[in-house]
Amino acid sequence: MIKLIAIYKKPEDTVAFDTHYNEVHAPLAAKMPGLIKLEVNRIYGGPMGDSNLHLIAEMYFETKEALTEALNAPEGRAAGKDLMGFAGKLVSMHFAEVE
Amino acid sequence: MIKLIAIYKKPEDTVAFDTHYNEVHAPLAAKMPGLIKLEVNRIYGGPMGDSNLHLIAEMYFETKEALTEALNAPEGRAAGKDLMGFAGKLVSMHFAEVE
Repeated sequence: MIKLIAIYKKPEDTVAFDTHYNEVHAPLAAKMPGLIKLEVNRIYGGPMGDSNLHLIAEMYFETKEALTEALNAPEGRAAGKDLMGFAGKLVSMHFAEVE
Repeated sequence: MIKLIAIYKKPEDTVAFDTHYNEVHAPLAAKMPGLIKLEVNRIYGGPMGDSNLHLIAEMYFETKEALTEALNAPEGRAAGKDLMGFAGKLVSMHFAEVE
């Protein structure tokens, strides 16, 4: 299994972030072709108390090729454009193979 | 479901890191009481080509309380001590609620 992992640092305005993420961005990301599952991990702390992160989103695909195709599809490009608009300074994106 | 998420940046020596992670650290982490699943995500790139990350480990627990108890148990402390020894400068740890 392959994952596209989006790691979001804490935004200044978490309410505005969550509203846009839940109502606009997640529905756009969910339209990517080949997406098997979108799992949202909401960060609530860390071993030392606080965490600098707000959210980690994991998008599951069958193969590396399916992930590449999804990002290059119109739906993937639309999700990417929206992402850069509302969270360009907060997010980092990573490709992972799950063991 | 609750996750303890460990995010590792790329080490200088990936072979030495992977050897220690696979042969020493993961078996120690797997002994934590209440652990339901340990999932290892090996990072192989990102949308811009490379990624600054090497590995993301996700440890699943039933409740926030079970995670706290696991970290405070002797097995959790042993895993934490080992972690700081081999990856203290590379790792960040986060608590997450899964939707």
